[in-house]
Amino acid sequence: MKPIQVGLLGIGTVGSGTYNVLTRNQEEIQRRAGRGIEVTMVADLDTERARQVVGPQVKVVADAREVIANPDIDVVVELIGGYGVAKTLVLEAIAAGKHVVTANKALLAVHGSEIFKAADDKGVIVAFEAAVAGGIPIIKALREGLTANRIQWIAGIINGTTNFILSEMRERGLDFDVVLKEAQRLGYAEADPTFDIEGVDAAHKATLMSAIAFGIPVQFDKAYVEGITKLAATDIKYAEQLGYRIKLLGITKRREGEGVELRVHPTLVPAKRLIANVEGPMNAVVVNGDAVGTTLYYGKGAGSEPTASAVIADLVDVTRLATSEAHHRVPHLAFRQGQMHDMGVLPMDDVVTGYYLRLRVADEAGVLARVATTLADAGISVDALLQREADEVGGEGSTQTDLIILTHDAREGAMNAAQAKLQALPSVLAPIVRIRKEELN
Amino acid sequence: MKPIQVGLLGIGTVGSGTYNVLTRNQEEIQRRAGRGIEVTMVADLDTERARQVVGPQVKVVADAREVIANPDIDVVVELIGGYGVAKTLVLEAIAAGKHVVTANKALLAVHGSEIFKAADDKGVIVAFEAAVAGGIPIIKALREGLTANRIQWIAGIINGTTNFILSEMRERGLDFDVVLKEAQRLGYAEADPTFDIEGVDAAHKATLMSAIAFGIPVQFDKAYVEGITKLAATDIKYAEQLGYRIKLLGITKRREGEGVELRVHPTLVPAKRLIANVEGPMNAVVVNGDAVGTTLYYGKGAGSEPTASAVIADLVDVTRLATSEAHHRVPHLAFRQGQMHDMGVLPMDDVVTGYYLRLRVADEAGVLARVATTLADAGISVDALLQREADEVGGEGSTQTDLIILTHDAREGAMNAAQAKLQALPSVLAPIVRIRKEELN
Repeated sequence: MKPIQVGLLGIGTVGSGTYNVLTRNQEEIQRRAGRGIEVTMVADLDTERARQVVGPQVKVVADAREVIANPDIDVVVELIGGYGVAKTLVLEAIAAGKHVVTANKALLAVHGSEIFKAADDKGVIVAFEAAVAGGIPIIKALREGLTANRIQWIAGIINGTTNFILSEMRERGLDFDVVLKEAQRLGYAEADPTFDIEGVDAAHKATLMSAIAFGIPVQFDKAYVEGITKLAATDIKYAEQLGYRIKLLGITKRREGEGVELRVHPTLVPAKRLIANVEGPMNAVVVNGDAVGTTLYYGKGAGSEPTASAVIADLVDVTRLATSEAHHRVPHLAFRQGQMHDMGVLPMDDVVTGYYLRLRVADEAGVLARVATTLADAGISVDALLQREADEVGGEGSTQTDLIILTHDAREGAMNAAQAKLQALPSVLAPIVRIRKEELN
Repeated sequence: MKPIQVGLLGIGTVGSGTYNVLTRNQEEIQRRAGRGIEVTMVADLDTERARQVVGPQVKVVADAREVIANPDIDVVVELIGGYGVAKTLVLEAIAAGKHVVTANKALLAVHGSEIFKAADDKGVIVAFEAAVAGGIPIIKALREGLTANRIQWIAGIINGTTNFILSEMRERGLDFDVVLKEAQRLGYAEADPTFDIEGVDAAHKATLMSAIAFGIPVQFDKAYVEGITKLAATDIKYAEQLGYRIKLLGITKRREGEGVELRVHPTLVPAKRLIANVEGPMNAVVVNGDAVGTTLYYGKGAGSEPTASAVIADLVDVTRLATSEAHHRVPHLAFRQGQMHDMGVLPMDDVVTGYYLRLRVADEAGVLARVATTLADAGISVDALLQREADEVGGEGSTQTDLIILTHDAREGAMNAAQAKLQALPSVLAPIVRIRKEELN
């Protein structure tokens, strides 16, 4: 059988990784796929660079539309990124009857519904294993491996940049700004790191996992997104003393009869959980299903060849599925078109989670009682408490101290109200620091 | 479309879990699979118990052959276990044109080549996600998710009983026999625990992963198998002091141009690795591929519903694939029939690994030099060394002490020779304890 012909749109880090791994492991991949897979055409604005990556038998063009227009191309791999031209090209490739493989989480988290519908109408596949957690086959695990389960919740470290920064802050007691600069120098953070450090990239990925887990449309616009820029080394240290680590988690939860939680924020996690021990730029996703219980998937979330590993897994799947009937395929979002539920994403006030609170208080009698009473009145119960000696916090003779509280699960709306009351207490001397907490058991 | 009709052979722990989860999550599974999946017939010698599990609309019989003979049954799920009647029934089901789903690692590790060939000749599927690591979708990860990779090595905690025992031995400083009894009382170990504690069960699973990873036939008879029964609490403690944990690992490695390592034995692993922190009856598998790097998969390796989760994932795959052409399917052992290599399993003497050695020695001058020289003469280099005070080891006034050595990687044959020479030294007073060590980085 003639090899599957692949056209790459964009041959930067992931594109060259894809070309290199496909070439290097050609024989092994064909032994598995039962058919050759060949990159025969590449579109990149920098045709010079493209030619340096691929061999002379690959056609290099500057215009992506030449790839889409080529009737010999079976699969288009979109590695341009962003919502702009990438969206147009993906829709044009689908319209031209090409299967599409993409690593573009931003595009799918925002325009996924439109793109998947177009693909289903045309009978082609849009595969996106590389869009979430790089080389970890988490999309396949969620869509196929755990298909028996009613998924209950997912919590993942799905952004390597922020996990590298948090690991360094904890290990070396450094502040965010210092570590960010170092991460940029080492290539773990981009020159403009906004999408990473503000949690947007993680929210794109959480949105995709949420849709697959629960059979709902992608709803990125409903996601709550909070990054790590305001996180202080102090809170990482206090969390550690209480047996917790702080990780930037993408979380999505089924709330029976109510809706779905979808949120990204710094989160205290018990230090003994495996996911709390995922360090540096590594990724890990915890999935809880009603039958399987808690499972975890760990690996490199980015990089040339790890991401290429996911792109090629998709290419092999497409190769196998391309010739079978459309209705036998694994659905794009795990659930069949027409079988999606319109379960809404809950507003943040309705989210239920535990909390870490740090209060800078006057070191005087009765403060603890007033704080505890305020929480109790709001129906929020305290799980653990840490009161520092005033001397340790403010130096000798200090009249201020830190009060750290871990709460049991509470509704965020109730916590907002209670926090406002706490803030108004005369003994509370500075803005309260609040970080959410998940037990993940 | 008419639902896929499933016949269960055996309705014990996993069978009833499969029936219950399929029934409970019926709607969700159908939304994903695009077709209903119904258990319509069950064979179990204990028809009374079977009837208590399934509803009145399911036909219960004592003779498994009635299920196989029923032309309405599309898929046979074999949950009997063992190599005996299970083998006959699986081959008969294949001959009758049924797809087969099985959790039977023993059967496949020993007779897999025969069974997969029969299935391929007949054009039916034999699916076995439940055979390795219970609910963790590791077969799918290896066969499909990591298909771009040249897999380099796999190391897994793939037996929950032994991991529970090792966790308890470490945490509570208890000896093997004591903890085994407790594990039996708690239901983590069977009345006859031989297959688990001697490493046979782990070797069955490692054999299957080895075949899938490297595209070689199953070669259980070539596997090196060593259990945990001789492990002493002392060595767990010394390992800990050196920064290691002892786990029973199933290991398979590609040795370029030489062959494949396939072995199960207690193994020192750096305590900071995630897999070293997998406790109790949980399972985890680390897979290293040339493109993706190191990945890890964690979850429950046994139990009614976790295993059912894997059985049902296979049923959904079979449902999707049953109607597509045989040559588009994922091959049973990842690589196509006719594309298997006959790379052999290396004899244990050719295995390369690190070692932990514990020598009971006379507390006298020159012992360390003699030991070090013996190792150096054999070309084995020392990575770390721990010498205990004689008083600590043998009580006050003791003239004996423990010398603990970690070596760098060496060929097992060389280590055997060196160990024999060490044992012959007059200062070495007791049989040397040796445990293998893997860095897994």
